[in-house]
Amino acid sequence: GLKVYASIKDVPEHVDFAMILINARSVAKVVEECAEKGVRAIVVVSDGFAERDREGARLQDELVNVARARGVRIIGPNTAGVVNTSNGFNPCPYEAGYYKLREGPVAICAQTGMINPQAFPYPVLGFGVSKICDFGNKCDLNECDMLEYLGNDPHTHVISMYLESIHDGQSFLKISKRVTPQKPFLVVKSGATKEGAMATFSHTGAMAIDDKVFQAVCNQAGILRLDNFEELFKMPKIFASQSLPSGNQVGIMSFTGGIAALAIDEAARHRLRLAEFTLETAGMLEDIFPGLGRMPVDMGPMMAALKDAFDQYPRILEIVLGDPNIHALFSVLWASPKREILGRYIEAYELVKERFDKPVATWIYGPDPQLIAELRSQIEEMGFPVFEEPETCIKAIGLAVKYARIREKR
Amino acid sequence: GLKVYASIKDVPEHVDFAMILINARSVAKVVEECAEKGVRAIVVVSDGFAERDREGARLQDELVNVARARGVRIIGPNTAGVVNTSNGFNPCPYEAGYYKLREGPVAICAQTGMINPQAFPYPVLGFGVSKICDFGNKCDLNECDMLEYLGNDPHTHVISMYLESIHDGQSFLKISKRVTPQKPFLVVKSGATKEGAMATFSHTGAMAIDDKVFQAVCNQAGILRLDNFEELFKMPKIFASQSLPSGNQVGIMSFTGGIAALAIDEAARHRLRLAEFTLETAGMLEDIFPGLGRMPVDMGPMMAALKDAFDQYPRILEIVLGDPNIHALFSVLWASPKREILGRYIEAYELVKERFDKPVATWIYGPDPQLIAELRSQIEEMGFPVFEEPETCIKAIGLAVKYARIREKR
Repeated sequence: GLKVYASIKDVPEHVDFAMILINARSVAKVVEECAEKGVRAIVVVSDGFAERDREGARLQDELVNVARARGVRIIGPNTAGVVNTSNGFNPCPYEAGYYKLREGPVAICAQTGMINPQAFPYPVLGFGVSKICDFGNKCDLNECDMLEYLGNDPHTHVISMYLESIHDGQSFLKISKRVTPQKPFLVVKSGATKEGAMATFSHTGAMAIDDKVFQAVCNQAGILRLDNFEELFKMPKIFASQSLPSGNQVGIMSFTGGIAALAIDEAARHRLRLAEFTLETAGMLEDIFPGLGRMPVDMGPMMAALKDAFDQYPRILEIVLGDPNIHALFSVLWASPKREILGRYIEAYELVKERFDKPVATWIYGPDPQLIAELRSQIEEMGFPVFEEPETCIKAIGLAVKYARIREKR
Repeated sequence: GLKVYASIKDVPEHVDFAMILINARSVAKVVEECAEKGVRAIVVVSDGFAERDREGARLQDELVNVARARGVRIIGPNTAGVVNTSNGFNPCPYEAGYYKLREGPVAICAQTGMINPQAFPYPVLGFGVSKICDFGNKCDLNECDMLEYLGNDPHTHVISMYLESIHDGQSFLKISKRVTPQKPFLVVKSGATKEGAMATFSHTGAMAIDDKVFQAVCNQAGILRLDNFEELFKMPKIFASQSLPSGNQVGIMSFTGGIAALAIDEAARHRLRLAEFTLETAGMLEDIFPGLGRMPVDMGPMMAALKDAFDQYPRILEIVLGDPNIHALFSVLWASPKREILGRYIEAYELVKERFDKPVATWIYGPDPQLIAELRSQIEEMGFPVFEEPETCIKAIGLAVKYARIREKR
């Protein structure tokens, strides 16, 4: 039931924004018409430009020339576009199965449409997003423009970005330095290997910079570099809802020693220290159950020995988080088929939410995926992030500690 | 409605197996009684032994002495026990929410109960298991015994193991060397850092060996070492259903260039080479759509340009897998809300399943988790593994190539 026009010039009203999905050869001409109509912002979804071949590169140059001459700004070409949750703007060019995106503090940007709503199930992300942007070939607006914009965007508190190339290294360094003392800036970059760099070139026609140079830029600018694509979505979570830790001592609470041992390995890799209880805390825990007053806290033996062990859970969590030596907590929960136990967790988390301002990263395990999902969503609604792997919890805490230090230094 | 006896001696029938869950101090006495009753196999779930303190270590010694004297074999103490899917034996000591485990080729063993059915949702694993075993403190039966047993077990074709300590390095090396030419042996080990090694000690009372020594053992014995706990469950999948690749050239089929670039980075890290098409293959693909005949195969442009692009999908997959230069395939599928597209994938996979014997690792992305889960289960039922992250697909192929080489050498 929507009216279709043969050309933008036929539209009677003023037009703010255009999205172009036609054949690459006709794009420059349509941009020209858009400019005449008064459109200043254009997303070019069409592909077949610099990422394709020489002829495509020529078409891209032509497109840029028209845009520059007419004062039009372009995102793309070869992009899935942008999303702005603050005003509900979500012009997806593909079949996405419409859903309303949850508003939140995290901006996700990438040199790929893999981050847009047609490709990623945002409702299960566990946090809300402020902006989404696929840069595409970055013929005009690039990651520097976006970073500058997001640095000033009051709706964005965390920036997570996937990059294949850097348009202008000096600007990128300068703007990053300005942004990172205000907001965590997380980056995944392809082209870390020679083979990947060549593939990057053929994907968007942009040359990837040497990975060592890029790493040096990250170190200098306080950018938190991530290791893989999934982390682009996982790692912002620790910053989306948790306060920054005041030190690098991490506490571990678990129902099993095996996971604690792996977590301690991972903690050491991220330069975290396993917290040690004060004598007072240790005493209080030992009073509840012998052996409980040492780190990592293994509630397994207590659970096996006491019939009402889970009734103690809220108090134990409160005592552990109350210890001044603990700057952040890795909390392992067992999603027991006994539902009353799950209620105890919720009770405990509500209690500590009111009283403490320390980051808690939670991992849930158990025999029933449905039960895990349910408990997870309850805990995330309370504002505590839940991660899918134990190692991810620890790495997230490691990043939070790293960022707290970056912020202190500036 | 089950009859309970005060002592095993009161049971009128013969007893094959006992599981002990009582206080540590009484365990040795009950083992003695079991021995008198003729029980030869005992799982000691109780904790409070060497992992707790000196007194516990003494109780453990006492337990071992009784077992040795009476010819009884023990798994544990401090274990969640064993599962055998071939005969349906699944004596879980905890509330697990009973479900029947799917029988299959993978044995999962660990020095933690985190792998047992009360802790892990096996139904969503995507493959069946043959045996599960939590070693616990390994006072009698240890990882060497288990490895030897699984090496000879006709129901087990892949062995995945989490270790905190090695009971006897020489035996472990010897038995591993015997097993790895027959079956892939995958190991995750904690204690890789100094801090983790100390934690391991306090968890089971066993000393972890130096990580460099352990890595050397893995290299010498052809053990595939994994990086984290999740991989214990994820990585066996590539061996559970796929044949071994005949070389290290990997093909990539995707609907987006961004993921291909990251995949190529990851492939280079695992010493895989990006396959190049023969001229014949390239020609056939270019005939379908210009630009399609190069690696990585990006179907995005075709999808945007042709209305019936997905009708071509089965033929494209068949041509790609038919290329002799391709030894394994990383296949990226977009779970489009348009269901007819999903049908094309299934059709294509059915086709290649009949014709080719090359490993395919699939990653599915899309806006709807429900649709992803549905497509995933359909593809896995056909015998193709689906992984949750793009990097995991590549790593799994890397492990398959590595194992194929290990097997060749022996």
